[in-house]
Amino acid sequence: MASVLGAAFYSFGAPAGAAGILGVALSIGCTVMVMAFAVGHISGGHFNPAVTLGLVAGGRFEASKAVPYIIAQVIGACAACGIFSLVGHTGANFAANGYGELSMLKASLSQVFILETVLTAFFVLVIMGVTRPNGPSLLAPLAIGLTLTAIHLMAIPISNASVNPARSLGSAVYAGGEALSQVWLFWVAPILGAIIGGVFGRWLLED
Amino acid sequence: MASVLGAAFYSFGAPAGAAGILGVALSIGCTVMVMAFAVGHISGGHFNPAVTLGLVAGGRFEASKAVPYIIAQVIGACAACGIFSLVGHTGANFAANGYGELSMLKASLSQVFILETVLTAFFVLVIMGVTRPNGPSLLAPLAIGLTLTAIHLMAIPISNASVNPARSLGSAVYAGGEALSQVWLFWVAPILGAIIGGVFGRWLLED
Amino acid sequence: MASVLGAAFYSFGAPAGAAGILGVALSIGCTVMVMAFAVGHISGGHFNPAVTLGLVAGGRFEASKAVPYIIAQVIGACAACGIFSLVGHTGANFAANGYGELSMLKASLSQVFILETVLTAFFVLVIMGVTRPNGPSLLAPLAIGLTLTAIHLMAIPISNASVNPARSLGSAVYAGGEALSQVWLFWVAPILGAIIGGVFGRWLLED
Amino acid sequence: MASVLGAAFYSFGAPAGAAGILGVALSIGCTVMVMAFAVGHISGGHFNPAVTLGLVAGGRFEASKAVPYIIAQVIGACAACGIFSLVGHTGANFAANGYGELSMLKASLSQVFILETVLTAFFVLVIMGVTRPNGPSLLAPLAIGLTLTAIHLMAIPISNASVNPARSLGSAVYAGGEALSQVWLFWVAPILGAIIGGVFGRWLLED
Repeated sequence: MASVLGAAFYSFGAPAGAAGILGVALSIGCTVMVMAFAVGHISGGHFNPAVTLGLVAGGRFEASKAVPYIIAQVIGACAACGIFSLVGHTGANFAANGYGELSMLKASLSQVFILETVLTAFFVLVIMGVTRPNGPSLLAPLAIGLTLTAIHLMAIPISNASVNPARSLGSAVYAGGEALSQVWLFWVAPILGAIIGGVFGRWLLED
Repeated sequence: MASVLGAAFYSFGAPAGAAGILGVALSIGCTVMVMAFAVGHISGGHFNPAVTLGLVAGGRFEASKAVPYIIAQVIGACAACGIFSLVGHTGANFAANGYGELSMLKASLSQVFILETVLTAFFVLVIMGVTRPNGPSLLAPLAIGLTLTAIHLMAIPISNASVNPARSLGSAVYAGGEALSQVWLFWVAPILGAIIGGVFGRWLLED
Repeated sequence: MASVLGAAFYSFGAPAGAAGILGVALSIGCTVMVMAFAVGHISGGHFNPAVTLGLVAGGRFEASKAVPYIIAQVIGACAACGIFSLVGHTGANFAANGYGELSMLKASLSQVFILETVLTAFFVLVIMGVTRPNGPSLLAPLAIGLTLTAIHLMAIPISNASVNPARSLGSAVYAGGEALSQVWLFWVAPILGAIIGGVFGRWLLED
Repeated sequence: MASVLGAAFYSFGAPAGAAGILGVALSIGCTVMVMAFAVGHISGGHFNPAVTLGLVAGGRFEASKAVPYIIAQVIGACAACGIFSLVGHTGANFAANGYGELSMLKASLSQVFILETVLTAFFVLVIMGVTRPNGPSLLAPLAIGLTLTAIHLMAIPISNASVNPARSLGSAVYAGGEALSQVWLFWVAPILGAIIGGVFGRWLLED
């Protein structure tokens, strides 16, 4: 349930387009941070299929629980986009992710793929580092949220910033068209990056 | 007394219009955060009638104390707007909340109603989560303040962001006209959302 | 020495004009926050004559030490402005404070006076609250810095945000002219506000 | 390894040019903050040759380890710029540092030299202060990251903000031309400033 909620509010943060790139980056970073502070103890605080799989790869989460988590995250993200479709004024294209014409800077498929892979690896590495035994666990939600803020500042102009397949799918379902046909990339690249980050983090942190 | 002050500075933050959406969002988030750090231990740190009633619904606050708290919050918000009317330069319409012509994006009554309800439910859920027994209580003011920042980033373009009936009433009293005739919505929707958030939070957090 | 440094970097933050109102607000807030984290334990972390006198009024600082502290703060602020005059590109008028033609929104003398008084009272109240015995002292620098950020977001368009007589004097000495002739206000109003905040805080916090 | 990574993500944050000065300042501040939270315990969290040498000067780091650290930092910064060259859309000139025509405000060599020296001294002083014995070590990454944010807000318009020779070299290698011929300054000034900050910090903090 907490994962549904987390993913929902994650996706809810995205259409704050009128506040600019910085507004969206802070909106999503703060939303994930405060949900992790508030309900992270219930579900472990991952609201993102790539993170769930990255933590499996990093030996921090049981593989058998991954599927129900991912289903919950997708339901949450789609529900959030559904509610936002009632509110309207969601900015361009439901904040869908994309390359080519859907990218603010018209970045190519391979450019977006590399960026989403690298940034999701970075994200999972940070998560593993701050939630390590004897790590700064009290401040983990702060670090995780601000990582998302930094990621969005780098990636919004290029891919509209995914690093979360559930959030990408929710937006794409409501945006439809080209966004939906590109959504595969925002599952493949973040999950690939997350697994790299998880494996690398396990080695670096000597888990 | 601390509630009067808190609500006053809450409302004081709103007219920082010259700094843009992000400026107002940070101004209000930081103001509430630091008042909660500084005087939250005196009144419990709620400066908002919807939050007070949401916490009653969530079993975290005594119903019998709600009315004097709400009166104090309204006095604080009106006093702050009174002081700001002396300073002048309060931006458009005393930062009043509204729909239709009063909404930056001309959002409709029902769109504003849904948004204010959902965001206030989210706000109360976060408050209950971070102030739970054995929760991250040292950082609760940080999480609560940044939740308000995220909420304002999402809602300023649509409803000018209330989630606080006292702040809405204070602005409306000084703005007058249409803002005053719409102020009922910014009591009904936030309080409805707060009660939903409180009841749901009680169940989710197993209070 | 730490007070000299603190006041110097406080004043150093102000001319970051190219980054906009939000940039200056964050620059000053972060600078004071990190100096308080780093060297606050040496001098008590007040880099501001109004705060020093407000804490005397609030019973938190010895009156006999106030004068050397204020001298150090003024030296620091002037030194910082001197260094910045070598760097150049300090934005309009060395970030001097002012009313009338010197105010971004052409606020009047009385409007600026009220705002600086209220905001400095708020600032001192927050400082007393977060540094109270058994308060959130680990996070006090965070709260104090973000209070300055919120204050600057509200006050830059109106008075260019002082709440610190040393910072105002430093800027005015280098800006000269009208800024220098108005600098009295940015000693009188912040100190008045600080004393109000100190006396009120002593009562509210039951010191 | 952690230093390579840290320097890499440090440099990765810089080209977020589409989000404006504030976006870059927050991107770099948050990136360094979260890397320090996540992997700072492995390498000590310095991702910057000037900081490494400043801490040697301040008696906080063994001189014999400085060279391998600096090599790792340079490799990390160059690798990050290499990856970003694949992603493309890196903004003007790979976020290279510079004076004269390469400075947003056309600041002169001596203006840039003074600013980079002063700000790096400030940076090292903050690092020494927050990592002192019995200091606020839990929050040290927060303070260090926000110091970088404040520094970037002040320095981007003037020098594009270095205070990190490795980050400057990485950008200059990919930008080439004039940026490469000016990169010496962004080794000399930050290292000079760092040593001043380290020696001064040792005295002030009574190490």
